[in-house]
Amino acid sequence: MTDYRKLWSDLGMDLEKHDRLTTALPLIYEEVYLQQPGRPQAMEYFDLVVAEIHSLRIAELVEHRRQGGKVCGAFCVFVPVEIIRAAGAVAVGLCGGSQFWVPDGERVLPRNLCPLIKASVGARLSGTCPYFQSCDLLIGETTCDGKKKAWEVLSEYAPVYVMDLPQMKRPEHLAAWRREVELFLAKIEQLTGCRVTPEKLADEIQLQNRLRQVLGRLYRARKADPVPISGKDVLLVTQVSFYDDPRRFIDKTEALAAEVEERIASGEGVFPSGVPRILVTGTPMAIPNWKLHHIIETSGAAVVCEETCTGTRFFEHQVDETGLTLEEQLQALADRYLKINCSCFTPNPGRIEDIFRLVEAYRVDGVIYYNLQFCHGYAVEYYAVEKALKERGIPVMKVETDYSEEDTGQLRTRVEAFLEMLR
Amino acid sequence: MTDYRKLWSDLGMDLEKHDRLTTALPLIYEEVYLQQPGRPQAMEYFDLVVAEIHSLRIAELVEHRRQGGKVCGAFCVFVPVEIIRAAGAVAVGLCGGSQFWVPDGERVLPRNLCPLIKASVGARLSGTCPYFQSCDLLIGETTCDGKKKAWEVLSEYAPVYVMDLPQMKRPEHLAAWRREVELFLAKIEQLTGCRVTPEKLADEIQLQNRLRQVLGRLYRARKADPVPISGKDVLLVTQVSFYDDPRRFIDKTEALAAEVEERIASGEGVFPSGVPRILVTGTPMAIPNWKLHHIIETSGAAVVCEETCTGTRFFEHQVDETGLTLEEQLQALADRYLKINCSCFTPNPGRIEDIFRLVEAYRVDGVIYYNLQFCHGYAVEYYAVEKALKERGIPVMKVETDYSEEDTGQLRTRVEAFLEMLR
Repeated sequence: MTDYRKLWSDLGMDLEKHDRLTTALPLIYEEVYLQQPGRPQAMEYFDLVVAEIHSLRIAELVEHRRQGGKVCGAFCVFVPVEIIRAAGAVAVGLCGGSQFWVPDGERVLPRNLCPLIKASVGARLSGTCPYFQSCDLLIGETTCDGKKKAWEVLSEYAPVYVMDLPQMKRPEHLAAWRREVELFLAKIEQLTGCRVTPEKLADEIQLQNRLRQVLGRLYRARKADPVPISGKDVLLVTQVSFYDDPRRFIDKTEALAAEVEERIASGEGVFPSGVPRILVTGTPMAIPNWKLHHIIETSGAAVVCEETCTGTRFFEHQVDETGLTLEEQLQALADRYLKINCSCFTPNPGRIEDIFRLVEAYRVDGVIYYNLQFCHGYAVEYYAVEKALKERGIPVMKVETDYSEEDTGQLRTRVEAFLEMLR
Repeated sequence: MTDYRKLWSDLGMDLEKHDRLTTALPLIYEEVYLQQPGRPQAMEYFDLVVAEIHSLRIAELVEHRRQGGKVCGAFCVFVPVEIIRAAGAVAVGLCGGSQFWVPDGERVLPRNLCPLIKASVGARLSGTCPYFQSCDLLIGETTCDGKKKAWEVLSEYAPVYVMDLPQMKRPEHLAAWRREVELFLAKIEQLTGCRVTPEKLADEIQLQNRLRQVLGRLYRARKADPVPISGKDVLLVTQVSFYDDPRRFIDKTEALAAEVEERIASGEGVFPSGVPRILVTGTPMAIPNWKLHHIIETSGAAVVCEETCTGTRFFEHQVDETGLTLEEQLQALADRYLKINCSCFTPNPGRIEDIFRLVEAYRVDGVIYYNLQFCHGYAVEYYAVEKALKERGIPVMKVETDYSEEDTGQLRTRVEAFLEMLR
């Protein structure tokens, strides 16, 4: 049996502080997840992943590195995981979803910065995230001012490579992004000492497409009424997809999707038919940030879709698999990733089209616009989204919050009032 | 005599609201500027410019447009003014320096956004900035999340063209920026219907180089002890450079520089020899944002240099004039503008080198890091700048503020304590 304390210690972690973190999580998880009635059986796997989030998967990463493999960490759905994997490295998400890490982040970052950035930097500085500690390279990007500049701070603690994402989507920006993808390939080859062949890259493109497809399949089930799985559970599955071994993740999520589809066939749901159906749109939610979903789903509504980076933005659009040469494959990767409608682009009309499409497909009654405090991109874009939704008569409410529990009562009151209006 | 009320009305301005704005400005100007002892005579011109800031220059813009010319507005030191002017258009700065406009900006933008952005959008929405009203095209850029997304809001009120500034400075980013400069040329030619010839562009490159050089000359005079001109006055001159006719501006600033140089020859200063010499570094200060300079210079110190976009970032580095073809000239423009060390780049080590160089050249005793509230780029970069300065034993203090007067007392106390430490 693995001695995880030794493993964490070998990774240079602060065991005492880490103990405080791991003591808190099960209590929150019990309340938020395990008390949900009628959960699909197949969620057991994801419960296990969370219970062992700093142990089982970390042991795999350590073993991978012991055999000479590399581990790359990233936060952002623009990082082409296919390339990392095709060079034999493992790609993992990084910690950044808990208030626990925020004070350590604020030691080096301004307070009025988004909690995701402060938490992630704090997770690294405090030595309490074994994913950060396991990384040979952190992959940054230039999606927002806060992250863009925070990579500079992180680079004092770990090797960092930054991809420059264009801020617009004119044809020349696709070309520039294509070039960034090529440079990224070169960097990863240099890191791993492995040459990326078209065969290996084709395999990984197929694998990530399958991963994206199985998430799409799970999401489709949420279109049913009654909804056969809670929004919280699907959010968790998506969150886990950033950390888990992709093949295992695909298997487990396929089993879950199959179970959920059976429920639809038998008309079984986790909420009564007719409860308000909510689309959440906005900034990502990293583990264990389940705050808004928990409030919504304990206030008599169901979250049926997330137009976020821990939602549709992550898995919609597949990489074209017909390319046989590296040239073609890199173009296909660049094409696919630049289809993501992040608020970092100006203008970003595709996001509004996405929201309209999802509102219709998921039979949404109301949209909750979720903004992590001080995220300028999504905060300013609310103006256009609100206007477009109101023109179509779609109810929308903006929520701006952080990771603290201070505003939970106030948020609940606002959510309840919004839901009341939808009934 | 021009009937300015008719002129403003023709520009679609809100005259009543504008009256409230123009009533307040002279009182502030009297206190901040006119009460300074021993000002150079040549500042009279700049006093006149401010007194007539919404009239004389606006009449020129209106006349230019009446003759079929175009006017382009911009905020940012990355916009290559040379191209605008070579196509026969006039380039002007836009309003954005007063708290007066902030509430109107907050009608469409989040509150926790930088006051410069909220004020500028508010200035346009409220119809109280005749520069905005006179523009045929607003030139945006992607330097920060707030501005990048605010252009989308502004585009509902006026035609906007956005230049995508790369977020890094690798060789491929210079190539991408060069391409943006080319596209910008095409856009300006389309707007004006005028072809930019190498001859015209050479003239405008020379003219802007002269403008930059005369600012450099004025700045050099500030190296003297006693300092022959106040920081407030030089800040004003730099601010005016964004609005004024460049030829007139160069003449008037040359006269000022000559007068100031005579003062140096005779050992004359506006502050006693030996007062603490302050470098201000950080975010730009748009008219009438003189808050920090006023506090510093009424607390017994002199601002001797600004490492800001309304300071050295605006005028350092000349465009190479040896290019004879458009190709060469566009490359020279791209090269020059990408030398600016804005915090929008990652990493941005050049800014720290600039600060070190300026601290030495201007014999600086202490650095005040000025950050407009919620500007993530400069806020996060403070970490690296502070560390670098402290390693060299250079005193530094961070000031984060907005346009309101609420924190003036507190700021004054902090500045005084900092200056006390320097003595």
